[in-house]
Amino acid sequence: MKKAAVLMGSDSDLPVLEPLFKRLKDFAIPYEARVMSAHRTPALACDFAANARKNGFGVIIAAAGKAAHLAGVVAAHTTLPVIGIPVKSSTLDGLDALLSTVQMPSGIPVATVAIDGADNAAILAAQILSLEDDALADKLSKMKIDMTEQVIEKDKKIQEKIK
Amino acid sequence: MKKAAVLMGSDSDLPVLEPLFKRLKDFAIPYEARVMSAHRTPALACDFAANARKNGFGVIIAAAGKAAHLAGVVAAHTTLPVIGIPVKSSTLDGLDALLSTVQMPSGIPVATVAIDGADNAAILAAQILSLEDDALADKLSKMKIDMTEQVIEKDKKIQEKIK
Amino acid sequence: MKKAAVLMGSDSDLPVLEPLFKRLKDFAIPYEARVMSAHRTPALACDFAANARKNGFGVIIAAAGKAAHLAGVVAAHTTLPVIGIPVKSSTLDGLDALLSTVQMPSGIPVATVAIDGADNAAILAAQILSLEDDALADKLSKMKIDMTEQVIEKDKKIQEKIK
Amino acid sequence: MKKAAVLMGSDSDLPVLEPLFKRLKDFAIPYEARVMSAHRTPALACDFAANARKNGFGVIIAAAGKAAHLAGVVAAHTTLPVIGIPVKSSTLDGLDALLSTVQMPSGIPVATVAIDGADNAAILAAQILSLEDDALADKLSKMKIDMTEQVIEKDKKIQEKIK
Amino acid sequence: MKKAAVLMGSDSDLPVLEPLFKRLKDFAIPYEARVMSAHRTPALACDFAANARKNGFGVIIAAAGKAAHLAGVVAAHTTLPVIGIPVKSSTLDGLDALLSTVQMPSGIPVATVAIDGADNAAILAAQILSLEDDALADKLSKMKIDMTEQVIEKDKKIQEKIK
Amino acid sequence: MKKAAVLMGSDSDLPVLEPLFKRLKDFAIPYEARVMSAHRTPALACDFAANARKNGFGVIIAAAGKAAHLAGVVAAHTTLPVIGIPVKSSTLDGLDALLSTVQMPSGIPVATVAIDGADNAAILAAQILSLEDDALADKLSKMKIDMTEQVIEKDKKIQEKIK
Amino acid sequence: MKKAAVLMGSDSDLPVLEPLFKRLKDFAIPYEARVMSAHRTPALACDFAANARKNGFGVIIAAAGKAAHLAGVVAAHTTLPVIGIPVKSSTLDGLDALLSTVQMPSGIPVATVAIDGADNAAILAAQILSLEDDALADKLSKMKIDMTEQVIEKDKKIQEKIK
Amino acid sequence: MKKAAVLMGSDSDLPVLEPLFKRLKDFAIPYEARVMSAHRTPALACDFAANARKNGFGVIIAAAGKAAHLAGVVAAHTTLPVIGIPVKSSTLDGLDALLSTVQMPSGIPVATVAIDGADNAAILAAQILSLEDDALADKLSKMKIDMTEQVIEKDKKIQEKIK
Repeated sequence: MKKAAVLMGSDSDLPVLEPLFKRLKDFAIPYEARVMSAHRTPALACDFAANARKNGFGVIIAAAGKAAHLAGVVAAHTTLPVIGIPVKSSTLDGLDALLSTVQMPSGIPVATVAIDGADNAAILAAQILSLEDDALADKLSKMKIDMTEQVIEKDKKIQEKIK
Repeated sequence: MKKAAVLMGSDSDLPVLEPLFKRLKDFAIPYEARVMSAHRTPALACDFAANARKNGFGVIIAAAGKAAHLAGVVAAHTTLPVIGIPVKSSTLDGLDALLSTVQMPSGIPVATVAIDGADNAAILAAQILSLEDDALADKLSKMKIDMTEQVIEKDKKIQEKIK
Repeated sequence: MKKAAVLMGSDSDLPVLEPLFKRLKDFAIPYEARVMSAHRTPALACDFAANARKNGFGVIIAAAGKAAHLAGVVAAHTTLPVIGIPVKSSTLDGLDALLSTVQMPSGIPVATVAIDGADNAAILAAQILSLEDDALADKLSKMKIDMTEQVIEKDKKIQEKIK
Repeated sequence: MKKAAVLMGSDSDLPVLEPLFKRLKDFAIPYEARVMSAHRTPALACDFAANARKNGFGVIIAAAGKAAHLAGVVAAHTTLPVIGIPVKSSTLDGLDALLSTVQMPSGIPVATVAIDGADNAAILAAQILSLEDDALADKLSKMKIDMTEQVIEKDKKIQEKIK
Repeated sequence: MKKAAVLMGSDSDLPVLEPLFKRLKDFAIPYEARVMSAHRTPALACDFAANARKNGFGVIIAAAGKAAHLAGVVAAHTTLPVIGIPVKSSTLDGLDALLSTVQMPSGIPVATVAIDGADNAAILAAQILSLEDDALADKLSKMKIDMTEQVIEKDKKIQEKIK
Repeated sequence: MKKAAVLMGSDSDLPVLEPLFKRLKDFAIPYEARVMSAHRTPALACDFAANARKNGFGVIIAAAGKAAHLAGVVAAHTTLPVIGIPVKSSTLDGLDALLSTVQMPSGIPVATVAIDGADNAAILAAQILSLEDDALADKLSKMKIDMTEQVIEKDKKIQEKIK
Repeated sequence: MKKAAVLMGSDSDLPVLEPLFKRLKDFAIPYEARVMSAHRTPALACDFAANARKNGFGVIIAAAGKAAHLAGVVAAHTTLPVIGIPVKSSTLDGLDALLSTVQMPSGIPVATVAIDGADNAAILAAQILSLEDDALADKLSKMKIDMTEQVIEKDKKIQEKIK
Repeated sequence: MKKAAVLMGSDSDLPVLEPLFKRLKDFAIPYEARVMSAHRTPALACDFAANARKNGFGVIIAAAGKAAHLAGVVAAHTTLPVIGIPVKSSTLDGLDALLSTVQMPSGIPVATVAIDGADNAAILAAQILSLEDDALADKLSKMKIDMTEQVIEKDKKIQEKIK
């Protein structure tokens, strides 16, 4: 199976990414996690992106905050789909990271998920990889059914609780 | 090759989507374009999404404005990757569509591109489909080279013009 | 009397809804509280909405956060008035939920109240149901008088306190 | 049948309200249209609101721009449901009117629709009045079917056009 | 000397107003503090405003949060200058109160100060009243000098501290 | 009677200020209009402000766009009430000018009116000057009555037009 | 004298930059204008930046719109001061470009000017270069005097016009 | 070497500025730290700015919150480059300070860094001063290499940690 790359602009983004790693493990998607910065290690980030496809990656996830350039810079150097996670920082409630990630100019898309939306980034990666992996597609279907059942379970509890 | 589905919430979104259709044709990606509304034809949209994978689609692109629910509603009914295009309408400059599309709750991702970012939606679809299609991957590489050459060409002209 | 339906996208929205349940009880409005998700249990939400009128409901209240699609999805499947409560989540201070709830396209209104405005959702439901229920209308009038008297009482205390 | 009151803060809001009047006529809902200002004719607006229920109104729609206080001031004087239409003006793209209308404090709800959402205000009024009027409920169901058919019609045209 | 009226929409606004009361006392400006709500005690607020000039008031200060209508409603009923203090509440960081207070339509101004800017509301009231009160004008001049000296004092300390 | 000073940051602000000059003339308030810039002629602006009270001014109105510092800089040099008009420019729809004008730090208030709210700035100036001028107070009362009558007149026309 | 580099993300940014070129010519600052894209020609942009100091440049100005990464990417590859001009595009009124340019993470500053603030970018470049160039410092002083005189001239005209 | 001036609008801004002082010390850049207010000690701030160049300063850094005028007012009185640090305060998450600092009108640039971006202000100052100081340029290059190495170190740890 193709691997997922998980790049974070700073190791301080790690707590936000916990649900992502858990989800990738649940899906048994092989991945590599790296700290790479669009601004502090640009050459490494560009090299990584430029060689990702031939190194067996199928999707790159990039998380960054503030003027979040990482996903865009990575996307400039690959033809793989790049998923961007805008990370909330101490000011502006994540709006800066969201706009810096999603408002990419024509030619270089970044598939942006919600602010701090690490879990969804993992699921989106799985959806992308599932196109050539029926087992993964089945896992996604099962996850959807599980989610439905969890909500139905909660629904029952609420109906008992609120009377 | 797997097909791309292009859903628009209203036929008034068509002009925004022109670059998308052009790009899909350039990539020779087979596609179907449909008008489907999360609110006016929800059953059709849900059915379409639920059956998309088995009907040969590999990715669904959904464009909508204002409280843009189309992409999210479609994503709720499929395990395919769903790309959302927030469309600018007459108030709030597209911010409403952007937040309604990108801020999806955990479990149901939408791969969001820029406001009115139809061209990038097509490229992102191509990147996703390229994982199992080397010819498409080559086209994406060529597109990147073309873009680079166009900028270099423009760069030359500017250098001559601005002296 | 017609019933009120109270749908929440997640049981984590329950604390925000406490004042709503208290208010409905004060008004002796019969209600059902359900956890239903536009994205995780869409079929259940749609069915519930489609059958709400004939099942004796007169108004549906839907609370959700982030890209809050629940109220809109419900409104797509009913001709009952639907009240939307945008719920504040961990980023963007509720603006995403507000715009996702209120900016509905033509044809499918959602009667939106303030962010986290659960109490007002209950009062609005009571106002709607009061059109065919004079006793409820009287309770609303009394509530208004009580509110006035409480303010007058507070006014007296402030006048004594601040001299 | 109970009447709908349509209050506008200024006659300059009239063009925005055209779809509302058309929709009310289509539904054969009796209505009165008035220019009343929360700031220029506050006494008239308060009197109108205070007497609306006994004068045969079932719902009040109030449209205003900028620091749009009309809906809130009207709601302070009635126990009828009040629908607020935030009207876009020359600055801030309607955000000021939206927040001034929707962010009502506890006790005095305003059922807010989208910025310039006059059509939806009329439909919401019809939904509210339909609780005690089966014929109106049927018209709403028919409108939903018509909307669905229109989208299906447009969908066919798009499918033919885009190949 | 003419009096200042200090109206608050809720007694929960009192902590925000502490600096205002302190400042009015420092200036020896006579004042009355009242809890009055644009929505819960509108008649009282309107009466108060309508009679304020003849009751010896020279300026009215109104503080309110969320869809803050109090200052505007008061201004509709008086020809006295009305100062509005937008109060931050639990969502949107005060932006709703700011826009609801400052974006008044033509004809009914509200002299708006910063969000939670109670101290400045008091100083602005003093500036207004100082036009016919030379002693108060002198106090304002002295306050300016004191502020300058305080900054100079802090400047000295910083210069010593940061070396 | 004390004079009003009208300062504009640039002569390009003049069209926005037309209603202000008309209103001041209607009220027969003597005024001086000046182009002064917080950044290009700071010394002149500071001198003007510092001497305004003794030169017979009772209120200073300052209009500026973008990072609108003029009102704040003027307020720093006078104890007169300063009215700020945020002027909309080509980007951000006036939000930058609004925040730069209204969010003044403690000690230096600016009485801010709506974006491009020149008419209200003039009325607010008249309200301030009316505290020591009964004739002006009467004019303000008459203006209020005129506004009321104009709305009533428009109300009649609408009632005839919309049937 | 050290040169200024003027990089634009697209030749469509050229009209916005006209005042910049005029200003650099007025100051006789040698410059090179280039079209370089953070995403389409990243290698060229990085090379240019990495070699700018040794190639005789003293400052780099970078203009870009939407998710404007150009200035940040350039800043990552040089120790020269980098000035960023956020360029307004068709949505969000320049806010996306502003936040993407200014909210740089620690370690890689971008000296950001106003949205579309090309003239100020040129002046800031001149100020930076003037530290080692007394003639340029004199030109800047003269520009300030000219600006002052122009405002004084306009002030005279306004005083004559508005009476 | 030319000195850096560090002006803060209030001594409450000091904690935000700690990384700036540390960075200036690391670079061995001589500096003076001052508390100066655009509104409380405007004359001192203007004098300081007007004489800064001849007093041996090469760059002025100004930090202020809310309607942050300090950097702009300082820039009006000098031809030195002025760096503005918008400081987050208790409302609006720093957006007010950002717009008040960066949206300067033509003629008076402020080199704006991120909200609370004190460290970057110091680095930008170093970059500016490095144009005539090769040793400082070397320190900047070394800082860049150190940053790169730190990220690489963190990258290694993450790779070990996340497996």
